[in-house]
Amino acid sequence: MTSKNLVQKLEATIQNIPDFPKPGIQFKDISPIFLDPTLYKEVIDELAHFSRNKIDVICGIESRGFLFGIALAAKLEVPFILIRKKGKLPPPFISQGYDLEYGSSEIEMKAGQLKPGQKVLIHDDLLATGGTTEAAAKLVESQGACVSQFSFLISLEDLKGSERLKSYNAEIYKILSY
Amino acid sequence: MTSKNLVQKLEATIQNIPDFPKPGIQFKDISPIFLDPTLYKEVIDELAHFSRNKIDVICGIESRGFLFGIALAAKLEVPFILIRKKGKLPPPFISQGYDLEYGSSEIEMKAGQLKPGQKVLIHDDLLATGGTTEAAAKLVESQGACVSQFSFLISLEDLKGSERLKSYNAEIYKILSY
Repeated sequence: MTSKNLVQKLEATIQNIPDFPKPGIQFKDISPIFLDPTLYKEVIDELAHFSRNKIDVICGIESRGFLFGIALAAKLEVPFILIRKKGKLPPPFISQGYDLEYGSSEIEMKAGQLKPGQKVLIHDDLLATGGTTEAAAKLVESQGACVSQFSFLISLEDLKGSERLKSYNAEIYKILSY
Repeated sequence: MTSKNLVQKLEATIQNIPDFPKPGIQFKDISPIFLDPTLYKEVIDELAHFSRNKIDVICGIESRGFLFGIALAAKLEVPFILIRKKGKLPPPFISQGYDLEYGSSEIEMKAGQLKPGQKVLIHDDLLATGGTTEAAAKLVESQGACVSQFSFLISLEDLKGSERLKSYNAEIYKILSY
């Protein structure tokens, strides 16, 4: 359980930006969190508490998933593997497609960095429909590793991302749910 | 001065990928550093040693500049400001164009996060021609802040990025020079 205090501080810090990236969408701007190193560390401590002794490695999704994921990996002293947008990683890499509202996209991970049997935390800043996260989970499983946990700073509950991730039987942790 | 030991460890860890992203270019793949949390922390300690007590805030350039920059900011207990690719930040933001080999691009920073008079470290993983870094420096100065330091994990010396940054009279630190 996230402390009420941390939730309140985050809610007071994250900015709601109307009509971005398009009309009708309210964007959660998390960038003010990074202006407050004490609050940032509290978020890392909270995520670390959820994952400590339960995972072998963290996969973080580009690029806001890097911002908490990398410091979390350092704190837990586990490896951090980049899941990047198409075209950014040199070979050898593996790819996984996923659907967007209009069209589709791909994410990529270096082949061979994840070892078979490793217990993996997949981390991103935001859980929306879960499409990108599910693609990340497929990359992890394709390497013979096991998705043990998902963690997010924010979940947009109406978009039902958690339901999409149910089949992994992994723990899911969201600090803030809207 | 970077310890010889750290340089050797990094050189043994970073992978040289021929012909990526295009024929004739040798890409430095830094992703194996993130698999080794001890080495990652040594890099952060090294960067922290250069910047401690000399800066008020760190600006990190998307997205590999986030990977060391955010943990460095947490270590030094200073704010971290995201410099992102065009279209990623909600308003209000400021933009700065820069030339690429073919065409041009833009980077953006939230308006108002940087305060006039603040001493700034601009951090990225790689210094090549210095075009993106120079654009970041222009964003910083446009807010009335002062570029005090630049730091990079890697510098490709043949591309003369350091010369391009000379006019800022800022300290420049590169852990590895090729």
